Order: sequence, then structure tokens, then C-alpha cells
Amino acid sequence: MYFHLQNLINPIEQDEPDPAAANALQEGLGGQFGEMRTMMQYLFQSINFRGPSAKPYKDLIQGIGTEEISHVELIGTTIARLLDGAPGYHGRKGDPIDKPGLDGATPLSIALDHGNIHHYLVGAQGALPVDAAGNPWLGSYVYNSGNLVLDLLYNLMLESTGRLQKCRLYEMTDNKTARSTIAYLIVRDQAHENAYAKALETLGVNWKGTLPIPKTNAERFPEVKRLVDLGLQGKQFSFDLGDQSEAGKIFQGMSPSGDGTQLDASEQAPAGVPIEIAVERPEEFSPGADKDLIALIEATAAMEMADIDATFGKLSTD
Amino acid sequence: MYFHLQNLINPIEQDEPDPAAANALQEGLGGQFGEMRTMMQYLFQSINFRGPSAKPYKDLIQGIGTEEISHVELIGTTIARLLDGAPGYHGRKGDPIDKPGLDGATPLSIALDHGNIHHYLVGAQGALPVDAAGNPWLGSYVYNSGNLVLDLLYNLMLESTGRLQKCRLYEMTDNKTARSTIAYLIVRDQAHENAYAKALETLGVNWKGTLPIPKTNAERFPEVKRLVDLGLQGKQFSFDLGDQSEAGKIFQGMSPSGDGTQLDASEQAPAGVPIEIAVERPEEFSPGADKDLIALIEATAAMEMADIDATFGKLSTD
Amino acid sequence: MYFHLQNLINPIEQDEPDPAAANALQEGLGGQFGEMRTMMQYLFQSINFRGPSAKPYKDLIQGIGTEEISHVELIGTTIARLLDGAPGYHGRKGDPIDKPGLDGATPLSIALDHGNIHHYLVGAQGALPVDAAGNPWLGSYVYNSGNLVLDLLYNLMLESTGRLQKCRLYEMTDNKTARSTIAYLIVRDQAHENAYAKALETLGVNWKGTLPIPKTNAERFPEVKRLVDLGLQGKQFSFDLGDQSEAGKIFQGMSPSGDGTQLDASEQAPAGVPIEIAVERPEEFSPGADKDLIALIEATAAMEMADIDATFGKLSTD
Amino acid sequence: MYFHLQNLINPIEQDEPDPAAANALQEGLGGQFGEMRTMMQYLFQSINFRGPSAKPYKDLIQGIGTEEISHVELIGTTIARLLDGAPGYHGRKGDPIDKPGLDGATPLSIALDHGNIHHYLVGAQGALPVDAAGNPWLGSYVYNSGNLVLDLLYNLMLESTGRLQKCRLYEMTDNKTARSTIAYLIVRDQAHENAYAKALETLGVNWKGTLPIPKTNAERFPEVKRLVDLGLQGKQFSFDLGDQSEAGKIFQGMSPSGDGTQLDASEQAPAGVPIEIAVERPEEFSPGADKDLIALIEATAAMEMADIDATFGKLSTD
Amino acid sequence: MYFHLQNLINPIEQDEPDPAAANALQEGLGGQFGEMRTMMQYLFQSINFRGPSAKPYKDLIQGIGTEEISHVELIGTTIARLLDGAPGYHGRKGDPIDKPGLDGATPLSIALDHGNIHHYLVGAQGALPVDAAGNPWLGSYVYNSGNLVLDLLYNLMLESTGRLQKCRLYEMTDNKTARSTIAYLIVRDQAHENAYAKALETLGVNWKGTLPIPKTNAERFPEVKRLVDLGLQGKQFSFDLGDQSEAGKIFQGMSPSGDGTQLDASEQAPAGVPIEIAVERPEEFSPGADKDLIALIEATAAMEMADIDATFGKLSTD
Amino acid sequence: MYFHLQNLINPIEQDEPDPAAANALQEGLGGQFGEMRTMMQYLFQSINFRGPSAKPYKDLIQGIGTEEISHVELIGTTIARLLDGAPGYHGRKGDPIDKPGLDGATPLSIALDHGNIHHYLVGAQGALPVDAAGNPWLGSYVYNSGNLVLDLLYNLMLESTGRLQKCRLYEMTDNKTARSTIAYLIVRDQAHENAYAKALETLGVNWKGTLPIPKTNAERFPEVKRLVDLGLQGKQFSFDLGDQSEAGKIFQGMSPSGDGTQLDASEQAPAGVPIEIAVERPEEFSPGADKDLIALIEATAAMEMADIDATFGKLSTD
Repeated sequence: MYFHLQNLINPIEQDEPDPAAANALQEGLGGQFGEMRTMMQYLFQSINFRGPSAKPYKDLIQGIGTEEISHVELIGTTIARLLDGAPGYHGRKGDPIDKPGLDGATPLSIALDHGNIHHYLVGAQGALPVDAAGNPWLGSYVYNSGNLVLDLLYNLMLESTGRLQKCRLYEMTDNKTARSTIAYLIVRDQAHENAYAKALETLGVNWKGTLPIPKTNAERFPEVKRLVDLGLQGKQFSFDLGDQSEAGKIFQGMSPSGDGTQLDASEQAPAGVPIEIAVERPEEFSPGADKDLIALIEATAAMEMADIDATFGKLSTD
Repeated sequence: MYFHLQNLINPIEQDEPDPAAANALQEGLGGQFGEMRTMMQYLFQSINFRGPSAKPYKDLIQGIGTEEISHVELIGTTIARLLDGAPGYHGRKGDPIDKPGLDGATPLSIALDHGNIHHYLVGAQGALPVDAAGNPWLGSYVYNSGNLVLDLLYNLMLESTGRLQKCRLYEMTDNKTARSTIAYLIVRDQAHENAYAKALETLGVNWKGTLPIPKTNAERFPEVKRLVDLGLQGKQFSFDLGDQSEAGKIFQGMSPSGDGTQLDASEQAPAGVPIEIAVERPEEFSPGADKDLIALIEATAAMEMADIDATFGKLSTD
Repeated sequence: MYFHLQNLINPIEQDEPDPAAANALQEGLGGQFGEMRTMMQYLFQSINFRGPSAKPYKDLIQGIGTEEISHVELIGTTIARLLDGAPGYHGRKGDPIDKPGLDGATPLSIALDHGNIHHYLVGAQGALPVDAAGNPWLGSYVYNSGNLVLDLLYNLMLESTGRLQKCRLYEMTDNKTARSTIAYLIVRDQAHENAYAKALETLGVNWKGTLPIPKTNAERFPEVKRLVDLGLQGKQFSFDLGDQSEAGKIFQGMSPSGDGTQLDASEQAPAGVPIEIAVERPEEFSPGADKDLIALIEATAAMEMADIDATFGKLSTD
Repeated sequence: MYFHLQNLINPIEQDEPDPAAANALQEGLGGQFGEMRTMMQYLFQSINFRGPSAKPYKDLIQGIGTEEISHVELIGTTIARLLDGAPGYHGRKGDPIDKPGLDGATPLSIALDHGNIHHYLVGAQGALPVDAAGNPWLGSYVYNSGNLVLDLLYNLMLESTGRLQKCRLYEMTDNKTARSTIAYLIVRDQAHENAYAKALETLGVNWKGTLPIPKTNAERFPEVKRLVDLGLQGKQFSFDLGDQSEAGKIFQGMSPSGDGTQLDASEQAPAGVPIEIAVERPEEFSPGADKDLIALIEATAAMEMADIDATFGKLSTD
Repeated sequence: MYFHLQNLINPIEQDEPDPAAANALQEGLGGQFGEMRTMMQYLFQSINFRGPSAKPYKDLIQGIGTEEISHVELIGTTIARLLDGAPGYHGRKGDPIDKPGLDGATPLSIALDHGNIHHYLVGAQGALPVDAAGNPWLGSYVYNSGNLVLDLLYNLMLESTGRLQKCRLYEMTDNKTARSTIAYLIVRDQAHENAYAKALETLGVNWKGTLPIPKTNAERFPEVKRLVDLGLQGKQFSFDLGDQSEAGKIFQGMSPSGDGTQLDASEQAPAGVPIEIAVERPEEFSPGADKDLIALIEATAAMEMADIDATFGKLSTD
Repeated sequence: MYFHLQNLINPIEQDEPDPAAANALQEGLGGQFGEMRTMMQYLFQSINFRGPSAKPYKDLIQGIGTEEISHVELIGTTIARLLDGAPGYHGRKGDPIDKPGLDGATPLSIALDHGNIHHYLVGAQGALPVDAAGNPWLGSYVYNSGNLVLDLLYNLMLESTGRLQKCRLYEMTDNKTARSTIAYLIVRDQAHENAYAKALETLGVNWKGTLPIPKTNAERFPEVKRLVDLGLQGKQFSFDLGDQSEAGKIFQGMSPSGDGTQLDASEQAPAGVPIEIAVERPEEFSPGADKDLIALIEATAAMEMADIDATFGKLSTD
């Protein structure tokens, strides 16, 4: 059973809207090696897991899978923020664009020139379950062979590929909103690489100097370095409400990344930051509920309550 | 941010394995109107939600979306149980099949005759992210127009179609394992119909006698009737850890199903039942970790701990 | 602009329901070489046609394309009839099946064993836009290169492949409902082969003894022979309401099939037979509108009429 | 059975070619909520319709479905015109592009920079059965549950989403060719919203102020306002040749849009305007039939006629 | 540049046709982990390879990739043989089926009951580029990250998964035609596992007792044991015509499978066996060229030769 | 069985990198009418071929199919070269772009603006198995009806469409790297048109002046003219190692293109040019094996060799 807390797992920095960066980040959300895929793959591996005596492996996969749902929420929200208000966007450095809405340009004309037109036409400047080339997410991405060694090997490869692609995304944009989430995911992907590599170590493999993949130097990316200095690549949260996870039997000892750090699975979850609700976009015909509606809701509620009181007498409904 | 509790949201009854029923249930998991779709649709609608003053609507969608993750877990586990040990399966009533493994039949020959061969060949008698005709789940199923009325109208139609298909599934099999989950989902889909119909009532629609869709008579299905008698079609749990959900501002008053019941959004979650881990399947080459491995894990852990003690002194790592 | 006449283009014979035959016929509806594809391909070729002086070619393609919409209607209706009431279906010759609804079998248990489960689970015993292996129809099937010779060559190949597959379908089932439509489409596909082959003759090709493809002997198939004896393989109707079609400038003279017949494009359309509406299926929760509803509709209409009279005075609204 | 009239359902205004607008309009043709989808959905719902006593509902769906084929023709032709001659296109306002063919630019170099390269490479500057992001149309878009209330609810949602997307398209381009078709479809989608909303009213729903969706103010779009002033959002043509449609039993009385207008189903079809055939495009190697060919056709025809005369005597074949 | 030799890479044993086994084997041809995928993945990795100093790795991948084309040929031919003449097929042990063609059964009625109907309806009892559930092969299966360690890790996982699935296929059928190819591919997949595992050893990984995956005991499968006894799991042929392959710098020394054998890359290719051409199938309307045609071909050729002699004088054309 | 020679089938000219041209060329690699498709279609037609007496037709198809694998290698390598180093690319004529890496632009920012972002994000500036609009290659493209005349007719249409699209590609770019491969493929496609047209001539068709399709004038394209002057459109190599091909029985006599040339099938293969390995791309985290690794490989190899000597005595391993 799953629960939600109205907090994002990591803060998103403020910067200009940037629909091209938003589109690139879609790979990290709906791409073959993105967060929807890791999430679904680990949930299926948890559901179909075999071997009661191997519970620590299941708990490791289940815990990472639960974290990936929060990553979907994080990167989806980041994409939505990069798109939001995009019609007021003034273009990349040194590449000025007519302000939409001025000079006779139509309000959504930007949709024809940047990234994926579906961001404006199908969604209302929000994230989509597609990759950066516009391909919809596919169930056949999910790998779950039922053979534990193979599943772990695949998962290691999957996290490393995710990290490789996020390193490339970092090289594509210097938008701060985008980079704050990219950097966080690079570090978490390394934690997950460590988790699966360690699990394979318990089954006999010795990685020597092969990890991490790719051999990225954190010093090259200051946003990444800050998080590595905090040790975030060596922690795995349980996200387990009943405190029944045995993942710590595996995620412990020296990191297989060979950086001399210790793995730590002792915490339940990071603190996170409150989620904010985006504004309405009239040019997308995207109203939520306006003031009148909210008044209507409250009036309706009051009226129904009165009816109930009349029918059943004054009873608590809590 | 999401959390997991090692409990299934509803118990699954014991019965014989039944690969044909397992395959039919895949529609409820990976079909166009199945639980993966409702889950993903509501998570995207929550992430992209617009209108700070419309928070009760967002909380309603977010809460149902969180519940759907548990439904994915429930129906996935049900499918895995219906498949598990299928090679020992003796066929439906009055339709005997040679016992695989006896009489010269090969151990997995059943895979050629029932449902989806991928259940045996690609998975190891576990659930797959596909529908009952074998089509992989598609990101383009997700609907999120950004217009609140349209999104609610779509969600009402989606829950009603899910319920329609589950009623048809009920008519296809009398396997108790299958029906215990089908019946539960019929009732929960009705609760979600109520939620979206009520939300549309607050925006002005009057459903009169149209709901529920389909107009199924619960008395026809005893497993459903039992749950309806408990009022489960009129409850919506928040699944919200921080107690910040305002969904109860909408989900209250008389049920739009017109059955005279009151809607109730006062509880956080049902109790659920503990999850059990499935056994290994050697004929699928699907070992988890055997005894030797567990011993190895523990030995490795002990050794690393000793190394750490030697290096850092006797320190707690908790 | 298109118009509809409430007639089927050809009668469908009565026979037992047969879900396996229904599924096989899906290839002729939603398959890569089925009627949805020919219809869409010719509509796109008509829309995008280039060359005002080549109007006879456009009119030929447009006329056949319009006929294909009626073929979609014909084969879809045939599939729906083959499925309708399938739960009461007693199996193929010598292969008795427990009557659903008796002996404890569930009403839709047949869905687990025959053809495509979606016919029962997603549709309500009706045709689907998929092929016989369950793949949904794809826009990328449509071929429209914009080069007239290539488009004609493709269309000839397409009609021949459609005819080849229908000949194979004929060999798969002897159900009369299925065969009456299969035979009709074999003959019409040959008429369309003749049309595109003749068009290529006007552009220089000489087919000698190559046509028709496949070289099926009509005597082998009595239902086909009957239609060939009527000359249906040598007629092309215009389906053109304004009598502006110039297709007869091409579709004339000796048939390229080399059977010594003359091509004839002088008629607008065949007579057809009235369409009947299928009954409701309660086990599919598939009511249309029951008696109460019809009464309600009429009452509502009367009431509105009264309101209008009251408001606007007694005015005709016809 | 279907018939064609060589008229477009609505005139298309003249303007500059605009490949970016053409690509955006593909969503309205081959998108998940575009005209190919409404057309196919309503044709399947008509073919599979259940309930002889509910014929007015079937006739309503069949009539709208027939209209949608004409919409496919209209929007496809609009896209083809927006693309046609695009190599001579000079760019959007204030954004000059080297004239292809001059200054050493290759004739089709524009294909690399605007919209969907397939418009030039696969088609010959013609419409494609894909959406604005290049995804091919999919059979799984079609919804036909067989439950009348659900099908009507879905159709209402579908038309509203189509209208929402067309409103967004209006905001993306001010090309007159594009807008003349967009505006027409916005108004017709509202007529179809009215049709399905009214049908649901007969089944019990009361929409109060919810419709139309989205709540677009026609005054905002002058091209739309002109058509609304003509009452086109309150008319539904039968497109029925045999005058057997009973759709008027439903499509009558006050509009559910709440604008005080009366619904009117008394006309068979609008007048339309003659279709023009596009010119050939040599740079696409897209000849139709040139003068020599036409001469050849006529000579061949004359020769065959002489042969026939020689063989059969002087008979008219007209 | 590639060349073909008219030999199959391994002999196929004779047995009864078996369409269910044929369909299962499609996973090994067109499945996500089948031979089309390994072939395409390694060809793309070879084409896009980076690092002139890493030529031995490229040569290893190129050599295995070339072998996979021969595997496509082998498994495709095996499937075609399992299907060929299937209408004369009498069913699996103890499950007699009416002989098609007798007792009034239609010639291809078997197509409705076994495996994939497309084998009879779309192909003519030949292999298809689809998996065992009928999904067409997808370009997005191909993995080529451009990072050598990741590509090798993926390839190791890919070969192991291929081998796992073939072990499961072995358990599904005891048809000798099927098993002769399954056993051969199990052993060759292990050779490829060894190749990629060894390549990762040169980059630092130590596999200890983890390999091979799955830990299948060859003694369990006699057909596999025979090939293992011949050492086929420890050989990698170069398939390189110019003798330029440096794969032997990697594929040498002790096998990473830990079975004490030596790896050997010294041979160019196995001998293979001649390919035989299948007979025609009239019930599929699948003629190749009959005697008359062959006579026609020869006559045509003689005539053209005479024409050439007449025109150019008696000249050799070789 | 297949073999590889480390030569490209045709030289690629040097020019600037050009990611837009690279993306356009993807249609020729992974498009519906590209080289992956012809390759796979002909390999399947060869595997499934029926009719021992029709061996010359099989050999013709097999030989062209083998050539197509080399075309995949050629066009894939061309795309990789057009992409390689693209970050240093300075833009099309008169359209300067900030040098990536300078002026604060991020190293891969070019990926956001040109062609398919996957070229940088998923691949490492290498070819992908997708078309120019980013759609992955699909198994359902492959056509193999099993009827020889139909297969030949389809193949003729396929080669002509491939040639049409390559003519359009020629018009889109004047990059010399791109055009050297485009021109070569235009000429080879014509040779294949000739092959299938000639095969249909042996079966009775007379093409008169219809071929080639499209009727492109070689003089218009100087790179094409050079190859046509060498007669490359009239040659078909056997690519057959055992010298068993009988394709020359068909591919002989006057060309069906009507250009007065003689067809010639007497040669085994062209000479080709050596393949070069691309450099590493650090900004893609795309290292092959660096110097240290190569040293490590050699050391490891030496060590293992010593071990073997120690164990088995000084034995040759060749």
C-alpha cells in the first residue's frame, strides 16, 4: 500500500521558463531510461519477486522503486515549471524572439518553434508521458526476467544509463531550474548504481575500478559536487512506513564506487519541501476553479450539510 | 513524496492457479482502462494541476491516484498468484489436461496453450505491463487536458469504463482468487465514479438517475454485495501522510449514485493485509537467493563489518 | 463531402455465431491490407492528388475509396454478427462446448478460449479496429508517395494482397455468414485490381498473362463463381452524387485480367440491402435505450415542445 | 453505403503557404482527438450499435460520423494547401529566410527546418495520417464500449477536447488558410457537443451552466463569431440520402449550451464548394499525368474502342 | 561489406510440423531478446564504435554481430519448417485433431486454433519478424549508448536473457526440429556471454562464480550437453573475410564461466550445411515458379541472347 | 551463413558535420522505405522462399538482400560522420551559430536545436534505428506474402519508393558527405528496380516506357551521372561466397529501364574501401578504451598466457 506526503523530494531552483530544456528533460521522465521506467520496473520486480529467503533484495528494489515515484513527481514538476508561462519567454542568450502577445504575434506562436508542440496543444504547458523525441512511454520497456542475478545486472545497467543521459542533459542546458533537478538525479542514480552493484557483490561479483559508470568527475559539475559532498550518493532511504525493510543488510559497508565512502541505509526519507500549485493559464483555456466556483463549492457543501442535519439530526460526519 | 507500507490494500482469496483468468485480469492491470492507466493519469493531473484556489480538486485526484498505485500492486499480485505453479494446474472444471511433468509432457508445455505465452517465456509466471490481448501499456493513454471540467469528465468516464470491464471479467471466471480482487475493484471504481461525479456536481452538473454506470445490480454479484453492504463504495481514503488533504470538501453529502448513502472522506487508509513473497520456480530458472547465498550475504556483511571495525574502531553504523 | 444511405452494400447470409471466424475476419477490416487501410489510403491519395489534367485517375481512386467505406461497414457488420450471441455458441463441428450459463459455466467464459478476448471485454461483441493478431490499425500503413505511377503500382499490389488474404480466409472457415462477405470482397478486390492495372496500362505497362494475382480459379469457390458469373469483377461504380466522375475514361475496354470481359463504369452504385440494428446484450452490460428510456425521450421531447410553444408561440420547428 | 459529392463542406481561404501551421493542423487531422478519430469512432459505434428501439441515437451518431469524413477531407485539403509550394515560402513576419532555389540553397532545404520533414520526404507536400508530433494514427484511439451512456459521455468529452485543441491552434497561427478551417471546426465541434449533451439530457443528465467546454467567448475569435452568428453551432445535418434519420427526435429544443438558441436537425447537408485539384510539384518528382500521357490515354481509349467495334459491332458502351 | 554462403550455420533435425512450437520460437527470432535484436544491436554498435585504439572490442562485437545474421537465418528457417505443411499436422501427443482436408474441414482451419494466425494468413507458413505474442520487432530495442563499459554490460545481460528464454523454450516443447536449434542457440549464447564477460574482465570486473547466467546444468538437456562436450561454448569464430579481426586479443585464456575451459578465437567459421528450398503450398496460393514458368524463363533468356547476338554480334556477356 | 569484410561498399566524401542532414538521412536507414527495411524484407523472403525450381529468383533476392546489409553499414556510417563533432559545427551558410564551448554556451546545446535530440542524448553522435521523424523501425514494415509475383511487384515498388525519397534527400542538402552516399544509393536502387522489373518480365509483364520510377534525369545530379556513366545501375553483384548464385539467369539482357544498356550479373562484389574507426567524444562520456586500458588488456593477456604455459606446458593456442 502506498501513501503520499505533500512534499517534493528535493527543491527546484527558480529560473526563466525554457521550453527547449523542458523538452530535453522529458527523456528523464518518459524516456526508455527515465524515471517512469525505473519506477515501473522496480514495482513489477517487487510484485513478482520470488524467494522468501531473499527478502533483503526485494526490500532494496521496493525501496528504490518507491523513491522513483517521487522522482517522477520531481522531474514532472520541473518540466511543468520550465514550460509554465513559456509564451512570455524571451529566448536563449543572444537569440531574441518577438515577445508573444506583442507586435501581432499570436499568444501561442512559440509552440510552433520549440521542443514538442504537444506541450502546448495537448497539455497545457505541463509534463507529458513521452520522451524527448515525442515517443510515448511503452510497457515493453519494463524488464523483469524473474532471475535475480539478471534483474540486478539489468538494474545496474539501467541506473548507469540513466546517469549517463542526465550527464549529457547537464551539458545541454545551463538553466538553473533544469540543472537543480538534473544534478539531484545524477547523484541519486549513483546511489542506485551503488545499491545494485553492492547486491551483485553479495552474489559474487568484484567490480574493482569499473564503477561508477560513467566515470564522471563530480568536480566538473558544481551542482553535483555540492550534493556529493553531502554524501547523498551513499545513502539509500527505505521509504518504508512499517519499518520492515531489510535493505540495510545489503546496502552497507564500503561503496562499490571505490570512493572510500560507507553506504548508509539507516534513514526513512529526506525532509523534502512543500509542493506549490501552478497558476491558471487562460491562453490554454486551462482554468482550474475560479473564485465563483469556490464560493459555489462552499455554498453547496453548506447546503448539503443542512440537508443532512435536517434528515439525520445534528451528527458529526468526521 | 511517496511511501510504502508492506501491506496489500485488500486480501486475496486462495484458489487453484488459472492462467486463462490471469491473462484476462491483465486488462485490469495494463489495459487502456486498467489500474496502470488510472494511476499514471491521476499522477500527471496532480503534477500539472493549475489553480491554487482549487486545491480540494487536486487533493481528490492526488488521493485517488495514490490509491491506484496500491491497486496496481493488488491486481499485479493477484495475476502472479493465478499464474504461480501453473504447470501443476489441472485445467478448468471438466476439462482435464495431462499433468505437466508426467506422461512425458515437458514442464512448461502449458505455456503454448493458455493466455499469453510471455507469462512463462518473458516473465517467470508473474504479472506483465500489458493488456489481455498482449499489447504493451502506452503513454498516450494518459489524458490530461489541463481544463478541470474536461479532466473530471474524462476521469468519470474512465472509472465507469474500468468498472464496466471488471463486471465483464466477473462474468468470465468463477476462480475465487480472481473474483476477490475483481469484486473489490468494482466497488472501488464506483467510489471513484462517485468522487468525480460529485466534483462535477460542485461545478454545476446534475446526474439525476444516470449513475452509476453501468447500472449493475450488486445483488447479482455476491462478492460485490458484501463490500457494498460495508459501504466501501461511499468512502474515499486520503492516503495523505501529512493530513493536508482537502478532498473532503468535495467528497461529502449524498452519493451521486442515488443510493441514499452519504459520502465519507474522513479516513486515511484501510488496514490492509501483510504481503507474502512467492516461492522460487526452478523450471523458470527463477531462483531468488538460495540458502548458500543467504549464508554468503551474512558472511560478507560480517566480514565488512569487521573491516570497518578494524579501520574506524567499533562504531555504530545505524 | 460524403453522404450515407441506410443500406449495406451487399447482403450477409445467416449462420451460427462463430467467434474464431470473426477474429480471422478482423484482418480484412483492421489488418495492414484490410478495408480500413484501402479506404484511408485512397481518401488521402484523393485529398493530396496532383495534376488537374489527370482528373480521371483521381476520380478512379476517389470512387474506389468511397466504396471502401462501405466495405468497412460491410465487414464490420459481418464480424459483429459472427460475434453476436457468441455466449450461446455451441462450438465447431464435433467439438462441443458446455453451454455458457448452464452447468455452472459463467456467462462470458467463452471469451477466454476463442479469438480475441477484447471482442468481449473491450467491445460488446462488436468489431474492433485491429487485425486478426490483435494489433491496432496504424496510420503508417497509408502509402501516398505523390508520384502517380508509384501510387497506382502500390494500389495494384495492395488490392492483390487483400485478395490473396481473403482467399486464405475462405480456406479457413465454411461459416456462411463469413463466406458471403469474403466471397463478395474477393470479387470486388479483383475489380479494383482491374482498375489499377488498367490505369497502369494507360501509362504504358502491358500485363499479358500476369493478372489476376493470385491466379485463383473461381470454380474452386462456388460463392465467388456466382458473383463472377454476374460480372461483378468487371464493374466499377462511381459512388459520385454529382455525376462528375471521369473514371470511365480509364475503366473501359478489355479487362486486364485477360478473361475476355469488358470493363464497365456506367453505374452509380449497387442497390444494397437495408441495415438491421443488433439486439442488446445484458451480459455485456450493453443496453442501448430500454422502453422506459424511449418513453422518457418522447416525454422530454413533448415537454420541451410545450415549453417552446409557451415561449415562442405555436411555431413549427421541422 | 456511402457516396461522395465533389464539393468541400466549407470554403478554405487563400493565404501564403505555411509549413509550421500545416504541421500544427495535423493534430486536428491525425491526432488522438482529431477528425480521423471522431470519424472512425462514430463509424464503429454505428456498425456495432445495439438496441433497435434506440434508433434515434444511432442515427445521431451515424450522421455526425458521416460529417466527420467530410471534415477529414476539409482539414486534409487545408494542410495540403498550407504545404503546397512551401519551397517558395518566405517565412513568418519579420523572420526572412533565403529563398530556396536562389543563392545556392537546394530546392527542398526548407524541409530540414520546419514542422515534419515527412511532409516533403514521404509525402509530396500533402497531408499525412499523423499528429502534430509525427505519431501515426492508432486504432486503439477508437472508443466503443457498447454501453450507450458511456459512449455518449465519451463522445461529449471527445468533441470538447477537439474543440479545446482547435481553440489552442487558433492561438498559434494567424494564417488565414489555417484559421478559416480552424474556426469552422470550432463551431461544428460545438454543434456536436450539443448533440451528445442533448442525448445525455434525454437519459437524465442536467448540464446547467457547465457547457460549452471550454467556455470560450466567441467574440474573442472573429472568424468563429461570424459562423456562430449564422447559427452553425445549433444545426446538425443528417447527411442521410434515404431520409430515414431519426436524429431530430433528439437534436431539438433548447441548446444545452445555454445560449438560448434552438437546435435544428431539419437539413440534409450544407451546399459546400467545388474541390480544386492541386498542381504538380516537379521538385518532389510528383507528376500526375502530363500532356503526353493524357494524349496517350485518349489514343489508347480510342484504339480499344475501335477494337471493340471490330469485335462486337458498333455498340455504345457509355 | 557482407557476403553470403549458401549454407546454414547448423543442421536442423527432422520432425513433425508443430505450429505451436513455431510460434514459441518466434520469441527467439523477433522478440525483444531474440536474434534480430542481437544482430541489429551489434551492427549498430560496430557502425558507431568510438576509439581507434579499442579495435579488439569492435572486432569482437562485429564478429558476434555477423554470426547473429546467420542465427536469424537458422531460427527463421527452423520456424518455417515447423510450420510447413502444418495443415497435415495431427496434433500433439494424445490430442488428435481432425485431418484438415478430410471430414469436411477446410484446408487452413488449423490457422484458427494454434499460435499466430498471421503465419497462415499474412505469411504462407513462413517466419515473421514478430515475437511469440505477435508484437512486431521494434527499432527501440537496440541499445547503443556509445559508452564501451555500458555497451558491454548490456550485451552480457542481453545474451544471458536470450539464453534464459531459450532454456524456457526447451522446457516448452520436445519437438526435435525445434530443440535442435534451441540447443545450438543456448550454447552459442553462452559463448557470447563468455565474450562480453571476458571483455569486462579486461576492463576490471571479476565475475567469480556468478557465470554463466542462468546457472543451467547442461546435463539436464542432452542436446545441449552434446554441443558443450564439443567445446562450442568456448569458441568464437571471426566471420571475417580479410583476416583482420583482433577479437582474439580479448577472447582468450580461461573461460569466465569458470568451467576450466580455454577460450579460442582462432577459427573463421564453422562448416555449416547446405540450405534446401521449401516446396510450394497451393492452399496458400503460394507458388514460386512452376515448370511452365521455368521453361518461359529459359526461352526468354535464349531469345534475348539471340537478339543481343543479332545486334552486337556474337560476344560473351560474362 | 554470413561473413564480413572490413571494407565499406563505397567511399564517403569528406565535408563539414551537419546534424540536420544526418537526421534527414535517417529516413534512408530506418525509414519505412530505407535500407534496414529492404535488408530485412529480402532476408525474410529468402528464408521463407518456396519453389525449388525457382532458385534463380531466390538467388536474386538473396543477393540484393546481402547487399542491403552493406548499405545499412554505409548509410549508418555516413550519418555517424555527419554527426561526429557536431558541437563544433558552425551552421548552414549565412546562418552562423555561437560556437558551442565558447561564449558560455554549453557543450551539447546544439542538441536542442537540430534534427533528433536522441542523436546526442541516447546515442553518442551515432546512427539510430529510426526514421527522419524519429519513429523507431517496425517489424510490420516487412512484406513477404509467399506469392512470388506479389513479392516481386512489392519489391519493385519498394526500390522505386526508396529511390524517389533519395532523390528528394538530394534536393534537401548539398553537403558532400551526405550527397556521396545519396547518389550511390540512387544508382543502386535503380539497379534493384531493374532486377525486380526484369524478374517480372520473365513472368510476363512488359514495362515499355514506364521505368525507371521516378523518371529522374541523371544529368540533373552530377554525382549520380558519374556513377551512371560507369554503368553501376546495370550491375548486380552476387555477394555469394560459394559461387552458387543463379541470379544471372534473370539479371541479363536489355535493361528494363529502356536506356539501351545490358544487365550484368557476372561479378561477386565491388572492391570497397577500408573502414575507419571514429574518435572518442568526451563530451558524450563516450570513451572506448583509453591507453591505460589497452596496456591493461595486453598485460592481462600476457599474464593469462603465462598461466596457461605454466598449467599446460608451452603449447600453441592459435
